[in-house]
Amino acid sequence: MTALRRIVLNSRPQGVPTSDNFRLEESTLPEPNDGEVSLRVRYLSLDPYMRGRMSDAKSYAPPVPLGGVMAGETLCEVLASRHAGFSTGDTVLAATGWCSHAVLSGDSVRHADTHGAAITTALGVLGMPGFTAYSGLKIIGQPKAGDTVVVAAASGPVGSLVGQLAKLYGARAVGIAGGADKCRYVKETLGFDAVIDHRSPNLAADLQAACPKGIDVYFENVGGAIWEAVFPLLNQYARVPVCGLVAEYNAPVSAGHDRLPAVMSAILRRSLQVRGFINYEFTDDYFSTFQREIGPRVAAGEIKYREDIVDGLDNAPEAFIGMLSGRNFGKLLVRVEAD
Amino acid sequence: MTALRRIVLNSRPQGVPTSDNFRLEESTLPEPNDGEVSLRVRYLSLDPYMRGRMSDAKSYAPPVPLGGVMAGETLCEVLASRHAGFSTGDTVLAATGWCSHAVLSGDSVRHADTHGAAITTALGVLGMPGFTAYSGLKIIGQPKAGDTVVVAAASGPVGSLVGQLAKLYGARAVGIAGGADKCRYVKETLGFDAVIDHRSPNLAADLQAACPKGIDVYFENVGGAIWEAVFPLLNQYARVPVCGLVAEYNAPVSAGHDRLPAVMSAILRRSLQVRGFINYEFTDDYFSTFQREIGPRVAAGEIKYREDIVDGLDNAPEAFIGMLSGRNFGKLLVRVEAD
Repeated sequence: MTALRRIVLNSRPQGVPTSDNFRLEESTLPEPNDGEVSLRVRYLSLDPYMRGRMSDAKSYAPPVPLGGVMAGETLCEVLASRHAGFSTGDTVLAATGWCSHAVLSGDSVRHADTHGAAITTALGVLGMPGFTAYSGLKIIGQPKAGDTVVVAAASGPVGSLVGQLAKLYGARAVGIAGGADKCRYVKETLGFDAVIDHRSPNLAADLQAACPKGIDVYFENVGGAIWEAVFPLLNQYARVPVCGLVAEYNAPVSAGHDRLPAVMSAILRRSLQVRGFINYEFTDDYFSTFQREIGPRVAAGEIKYREDIVDGLDNAPEAFIGMLSGRNFGKLLVRVEAD
Repeated sequence: MTALRRIVLNSRPQGVPTSDNFRLEESTLPEPNDGEVSLRVRYLSLDPYMRGRMSDAKSYAPPVPLGGVMAGETLCEVLASRHAGFSTGDTVLAATGWCSHAVLSGDSVRHADTHGAAITTALGVLGMPGFTAYSGLKIIGQPKAGDTVVVAAASGPVGSLVGQLAKLYGARAVGIAGGADKCRYVKETLGFDAVIDHRSPNLAADLQAACPKGIDVYFENVGGAIWEAVFPLLNQYARVPVCGLVAEYNAPVSAGHDRLPAVMSAILRRSLQVRGFINYEFTDDYFSTFQREIGPRVAAGEIKYREDIVDGLDNAPEAFIGMLSGRNFGKLLVRVEAD
């Protein structure tokens, strides 16, 4: 009998999640039926969107039910297979959620392919975070040579690829990150043209100085104070792909006055495009193109990435809570220990 | 000597424009130089965007200077030509502004072509208002069969074509208009599927009842209270072309609380697209396509339009002020009398 450990939603957060919102449960792993595979989880990906799934506000995806396993994508080893597409020992991607093992339909699982790059990139720069950067920037942002592209959380798995792709397409990449270490990494390792520390007391002035020709693409993944600094600098025909508002997941930031009329007026007067998206909107049409374009560059070291790996499933809630306040440095993964 | 009368910007409006903001000036028409044409204005088009040009807020187009002729497009007769492309008696479109006559470079003027429809349609359903409807709906709104398309000012030159095009492309057209006469016209003459009176005390409930499957395209030309009713009904992947905010030109409507976080959150959660535009962004690529597609349908009476014609240049300011509060019924034109 294999022990199955999983972390479930114990209660819905009010504002910032706390460890009380999570609960560890143990049971035993069932045997796979026909068409199913039995999986051991090796790595769990922790991502900001999970904060949204903890709430029961209307959204693109149903909320995690109270008592349900926290949703999440994992990199797994196949323990046993009763599906023709998989064999024992295969490495696969699966939506098992936050758990140590799972039995799933083989149709819901796919082989991990990283074009020669480290296998964990299947959860990061070559997985959903990378594809979020790619699809939002390329399909919605449409950067042209000479454009200025701004992205926050620039040392993170999405932002770091947004900036590197902007450079690849001939644009100027301006990143926003928190603290000297992350800023140095963004500029020196990732090769952004400029970086702003969001803890600067002069955020708006710093950003303006870094964007002397205004902003043509703002890849929105944080909201909050960054938006306030970006908004006046958006050029005519600027594009704003909106993939996250992590600063507002816990508590929406309100300006004390109604900002909507000024924003709508600017959208009209400057012909702005503001477009929300979830990467899976584009998966069918673009995911394989993305992997073919980006995979070899990651494998060759031309595109950089950084991982922040936490050991042990039990530590997932704390790591997740820390990520929401920017405590991680790189793609946050949990290495899930087998019992 | 031909007398030239023109209406200039006397002062910038504070809120709703008044007749004091305009001033009539008289002079004499100069002779055309080489490459120029001398024009008699037959019809002046009055359009909501002109309110924006009276302000000196930063915008896509420079403001009319104090003492400058009010900007506007006109349908003119060529009195004399020193440009190879035009002859005396030709009917042309020109950006003369609010005046009785003008001398312009022939290169800035073009022949009016209405595919057999009445010549005044060159300023309305087959001119910039029609092209605004066409480009915003078709290029940004991208209505599909079965979609629900909502447009306000539905009896006006832009809204009336938006709804008729929506029907043409297999979508459900829901119009918003002010008063029983306009609502009847929108439903019975233009053939919208449903119409809402924006003076209804139950605007939100009425709109919800008219859109049982939510809203896929909201063609935004008014802002204000209509947006509040529309916003909760926008479906996932809804498109919002923003071509005007006429309700907010005079005084932005503020909700008393900051609506921006909720709007940004909905843009993210429902993958909405909000896109401002000015028709001239698309003129080079699409204007001739538009005329070929729509011209014959207007000439054949399949696409309906309505004109509201005011006599005399002196009456242009009053007519314009009335338009901003919805007093016109149909495309507002001024028939400019020759002296």
